[in-house]
Amino acid sequence: MRSHTHYLWFTTKQRQEIIDITDEVAAQVAKSGVQEGFVLVSAMHITASVFVNDHESGLWAVAPWDPKRYRHNETGEDNAAAHLRSLTIGHEVIVPITAAKLDFGPWQRVFYGEWDGQRRKRVIIKVLGEP
Amino acid sequence: MRSHTHYLWFTTKQRQEIIDITDEVAAQVAKSGVQEGFVLVSAMHITASVFVNDHESGLWAVAPWDPKRYRHNETGEDNAAAHLRSLTIGHEVIVPITAAKLDFGPWQRVFYGEWDGQRRKRVIIKVLGEP
Amino acid sequence: MRSHTHYLWFTTKQRQEIIDITDEVAAQVAKSGVQEGFVLVSAMHITASVFVNDHESGLWAVAPWDPKRYRHNETGEDNAAAHLRSLTIGHEVIVPITAAKLDFGPWQRVFYGEWDGQRRKRVIIKVLGEP
Repeated sequence: MRSHTHYLWFTTKQRQEIIDITDEVAAQVAKSGVQEGFVLVSAMHITASVFVNDHESGLWAVAPWDPKRYRHNETGEDNAAAHLRSLTIGHEVIVPITAAKLDFGPWQRVFYGEWDGQRRKRVIIKVLGEP
Repeated sequence: MRSHTHYLWFTTKQRQEIIDITDEVAAQVAKSGVQEGFVLVSAMHITASVFVNDHESGLWAVAPWDPKRYRHNETGEDNAAAHLRSLTIGHEVIVPITAAKLDFGPWQRVFYGEWDGQRRKRVIIKVLGEP
Repeated sequence: MRSHTHYLWFTTKQRQEIIDITDEVAAQVAKSGVQEGFVLVSAMHITASVFVNDHESGLWAVAPWDPKRYRHNETGEDNAAAHLRSLTIGHEVIVPITAAKLDFGPWQRVFYGEWDGQRRKRVIIKVLGEP
């Protein structure tokens, strides 16, 4: 059994950004030497998401992220919508590793969704499996 | 440590279908020989979900899947609601394996949710654990 | 490779409660002897969630959980909103274990969200990794 841990750091220029991190994840899987296993990709902050999708241009428009829909004003918190996105979109994914590669469908990519950026944020990549 | 990988293929007749795949997942766990571990069940397409629930008749009605709620018309994409369902319902689950069985509560089942079907789609079942 | 399984039981006084279970999860990781690995924390009922967030006071207000938003009356089921929360918030998380500790960001905590309580409910904690 083998494990490998790596942290990705982000300081986005925009408050909200969606960043394709598939290549970074694949690089860490290669570095781990794991042939069969799982890689966990998990945001270490409660105002960010990690998710699998393709990077269609419609992604932003599709997601129901209009803060006005979520009564956030009642809380007096500016980043309430960011928390909700983190909760519903999720903050982590597990990607299967088969024959030392990310075992994805043809359109799948891993994304980091920054919902409250312009500060240093972190994602953990953790690989576990058989060498 | 042992791993086992299997792919389920679907070509649904309806554009949208919810299919109980618990028995297929359990069969692959049995085949793996894993006694203690995890099984990942993950859709390999961005317009499908894998989730745990019971198969109550109300499942379809409950989910807020009316495309009109999600501004999808603004994107010009026909399958925008399918992407959103995949994002919010999620595309994967991890089921614990204890004593070589799916360690589920009494009402839990694994479902494949097809949101844009009538074409060949795939789910990966990946088992990892102790023999 | 090592694995460890533990069940947490809850009988909430309120129908809906959010309970911080981080310390219980950390205690089971310590007990497992795993240094590098994953811990799965998964609700064994379809009307509960397990999720990672901080315990801000605004958490309840933020989440779009007003049952009236979800057409649940059409189903005739009283706990329809509970199912939907379980589906969208999710019923499980994987927390990475590094150097025998939960590898969390500074604000992250694990919560059990009871959406239809006042009865005995269960969460599985399953640790898998390297001793």
